Amino acid sequence: MANKLTSRNTDYSKWYNEIVVNADLAENSAVRGCMIIKPYGYAIWEKMQAELDKMFKATGHENAYFPLFVPKSLFEAEEKNAEGFAKECAVVTHYRLKNDEDNPGKLIVDPNAKLEEELVVRPTSEAVIWNTYKSWIQSYRDLPILINQWANVVRWEMRTRLFLRTAEFLWQEGHTAHATKAEAIAEARQMNQVYADFVENYMAIPVIQGIKTESERFAGAVETFCIEALMQDGKALQAGTSHFLGQNFSKAFDVKYATAEGGLDYVWATSWGVSTRLIGALIMTHSDDNGLVLPPNLAPIQVVIIPIYKGEEEQNEVAITAEKIKRDLEEKNIRVKFDNRDKFKPGYKFNDYELKGVPLRIAIGPKDLKNGTLEIARRDTLSKSIVSQGEIVGYITSELEKIQIDLFEKAKAFRSENITKVDDFESFKEVLNGKGGFVSAHWDGTNESEEAIKKDTKATIRCIPLDNEQEAGVCVFSGNPSLQRVLFAKSY
Amino acid sequence: MANKLTSRNTDYSKWYNEIVVNADLAENSAVRGCMIIKPYGYAIWEKMQAELDKMFKATGHENAYFPLFVPKSLFEAEEKNAEGFAKECAVVTHYRLKNDEDNPGKLIVDPNAKLEEELVVRPTSEAVIWNTYKSWIQSYRDLPILINQWANVVRWEMRTRLFLRTAEFLWQEGHTAHATKAEAIAEARQMNQVYADFVENYMAIPVIQGIKTESERFAGAVETFCIEALMQDGKALQAGTSHFLGQNFSKAFDVKYATAEGGLDYVWATSWGVSTRLIGALIMTHSDDNGLVLPPNLAPIQVVIIPIYKGEEEQNEVAITAEKIKRDLEEKNIRVKFDNRDKFKPGYKFNDYELKGVPLRIAIGPKDLKNGTLEIARRDTLSKSIVSQGEIVGYITSELEKIQIDLFEKAKAFRSENITKVDDFESFKEVLNGKGGFVSAHWDGTNESEEAIKKDTKATIRCIPLDNEQEAGVCVFSGNPSLQRVLFAKSY
Repeated sequence: MANKLTSRNTDYSKWYNEIVVNADLAENSAVRGCMIIKPYGYAIWEKMQAELDKMFKATGHENAYFPLFVPKSLFEAEEKNAEGFAKECAVVTHYRLKNDEDNPGKLIVDPNAKLEEELVVRPTSEAVIWNTYKSWIQSYRDLPILINQWANVVRWEMRTRLFLRTAEFLWQEGHTAHATKAEAIAEARQMNQVYADFVENYMAIPVIQGIKTESERFAGAVETFCIEALMQDGKALQAGTSHFLGQNFSKAFDVKYATAEGGLDYVWATSWGVSTRLIGALIMTHSDDNGLVLPPNLAPIQVVIIPIYKGEEEQNEVAITAEKIKRDLEEKNIRVKFDNRDKFKPGYKFNDYELKGVPLRIAIGPKDLKNGTLEIARRDTLSKSIVSQGEIVGYITSELEKIQIDLFEKAKAFRSENITKVDDFESFKEVLNGKGGFVSAHWDGTNESEEAIKKDTKATIRCIPLDNEQEAGVCVFSGNPSLQRVLFAKSY
Repeated sequence: MANKLTSRNTDYSKWYNEIVVNADLAENSAVRGCMIIKPYGYAIWEKMQAELDKMFKATGHENAYFPLFVPKSLFEAEEKNAEGFAKECAVVTHYRLKNDEDNPGKLIVDPNAKLEEELVVRPTSEAVIWNTYKSWIQSYRDLPILINQWANVVRWEMRTRLFLRTAEFLWQEGHTAHATKAEAIAEARQMNQVYADFVENYMAIPVIQGIKTESERFAGAVETFCIEALMQDGKALQAGTSHFLGQNFSKAFDVKYATAEGGLDYVWATSWGVSTRLIGALIMTHSDDNGLVLPPNLAPIQVVIIPIYKGEEEQNEVAITAEKIKRDLEEKNIRVKFDNRDKFKPGYKFNDYELKGVPLRIAIGPKDLKNGTLEIARRDTLSKSIVSQGEIVGYITSELEKIQIDLFEKAKAFRSENITKVDDFESFKEVLNGKGGFVSAHWDGTNESEEAIKKDTKATIRCIPLDNEQEAGVCVFSGNPSLQRVLFAKSY
């Protein structure tokens, strides 16, 4: 099973798709561009949700739920936001189907059930939320509002890929309202930091925090903060964004508040989101030609126990010890599966859990019962050890911690090797089309140069790193003066 | 604030709506029939989700996610299901908006972006899921499939009410596939029992388990199990349903499996769901003219501590003891809020938390510091006690348990008083239009009598109780022979 995967070197994109499907994470549905998230993939998303939700609540946010539909008149209120999403949105125009008189058993749209105003299926919820905040906010006493929503959104993407770009996806979107500009900027930065912490500590993916250039900004934002990660094929992936929206939405929806000083001012806003796209980043950062590799902190199954036996009697004997080990590990809150199914052979199970990226595998057979040992295999290194049964809980606990750290360090080392400083456009193109990765180069700060570079190389400015070194230089494209390097890359 | 509510006797429906809005649970949105679930209301839903999710997983179910959209051709495949939902569904016909050339800044539907096949926003997911199961199921080894989904669904209801009936609502829908009819029926019954356990033990609402008559069955089901609750105004509310779908969907989507015996058979199905409607039931069962009353097992805040003080110094002294009590209670996993906001007076806070249904209130002032006491008020009975600080943890723990039980017993006693046996149609109408509640009456088992009764009285058969006593009698409407009584009521 596992050795059926296309190798990364042969066809990275095919390899990715095969992992998603063969590891039972997700599959395409009958609806163009919409995916089905299968139980194993969804279990990873649930782990991610649980951790993120804790972090949001720890920073004072509450969850709420706003409507799926945005009336067209609200959708168009913030002009840039509308412009950014109008080209790819699902539009509800009718509220009833009726029998097709010419084709018994078939249904057609009932022309008499046309909506007076069309509804857009939310591609993001700023419009519907700011229209609501208008009635929630009168005075500085009503601020800040710190709300998050877990929801599905729809963007009618033309080219879709499982998890990475789908017409419907699951995400969370935070929407906050503040009395001052400084507070809103601090909030946007804080949530970008929360994302960075989550992605690094749970997903074991190193990220670069930065701000987007004007052309890459969220439609309607004044400033977009982001975390950027590097995939194994040398392409960058935007893993999360946090936007300082200024007063764009409060002006579009006329949301003013009475200040403590007796004045009247527009409210300051942020929004921030991460989505099921993160699962794509998780797969592409750690996995190998044998399948998925999951960091222990997010693995639905951290340890799988596979019994080796001949005949029912041996199976029963092995099961007694296996069940005990399972209980001992579960007492330490380790997520364990004992796969005692008789209809599959150990070799099949080994392959299957390898493909599914379970961090640690314990094999136990009659010889182990005699010797008081267990065979432990690490998914990330594929290395095996013999461990005495008495030491198993401590061993597993420390191995899980080690794997989590090792995956992060490995990804970080890979990224370090793949940030290349270049100072002329020929080298720029050579690196981009050769080893890939992030290219650190001077840029003159104009849309024109950025656009020209993109057109020529398909690389975009992924971000201007937050704590960027200031260094005089000349733009790699135009030769005009520049004060800092920025990170270019091809991206997902 | 609290005394501004309309009383239940004056206008039950108005009272309900005022509680929902004033207790910050939910409000209407700019989108017809779609509600905004506010943080306090959503926190209750999160508690409900967490408990239900545990119960689903404990019975072997996994979560997954299926698309929001159902292509029209899939939607119409199971004829009865399609017929049941076609009249009230949101239909996506286009995937783009464009600038309106005649009205700068306005958008119109782009006629060039018409979908080849219309998409229905899911009113329920049987169609899209059974179309998927077709490729997941080949043999008996692939069965059972036990999947649940947490999702939003849309039904274009004409008359909507917050939580009780909204165009978009949040729910969970379980969809299972089985090799045998008996196993599928057992699953449907099991999940109805899970719902009954949840609603009784967490929501403190007594329910009657039963089966629906043919006319009240879910569109596409062979048998619909349900739990029915009674609201304070004497109307019934269907709190959850679990459907045995027979082979209707496997036949519509051609889902066959190779049996262990070498044959080929259609798969047996169930589906089951509860929704944010449950919050409506929660409100209408326990609340009073002062506002919401929440059962401790689901209350986002179980205990609120309100300080009484004059001046900063007293506030600080009171806060030290209040914080300590908060910590002590939180150690026992009790959800406590210490509301030390200076901008609101104690009286305002008392009213506000009463309106919001917080089960227990602790008031603490300088006198209490001196005497080592605290004043405890119960939301459900509005009774007050003075408790010594040293005994507070034990007292609160046992009071929370008591409130949970008392709310259930009170609701159960109310229901017992409001199940009335009648044996003639005049009494039937008299009870229905007088005290209301469930009317237990003989019915001849025909659609005709059921329909005629409904037309005449607006009462429907809520269910045939599961463990119904068999008792010969005559139909309250037709006079024809009947073997059992069924429960009639007006309902939400």
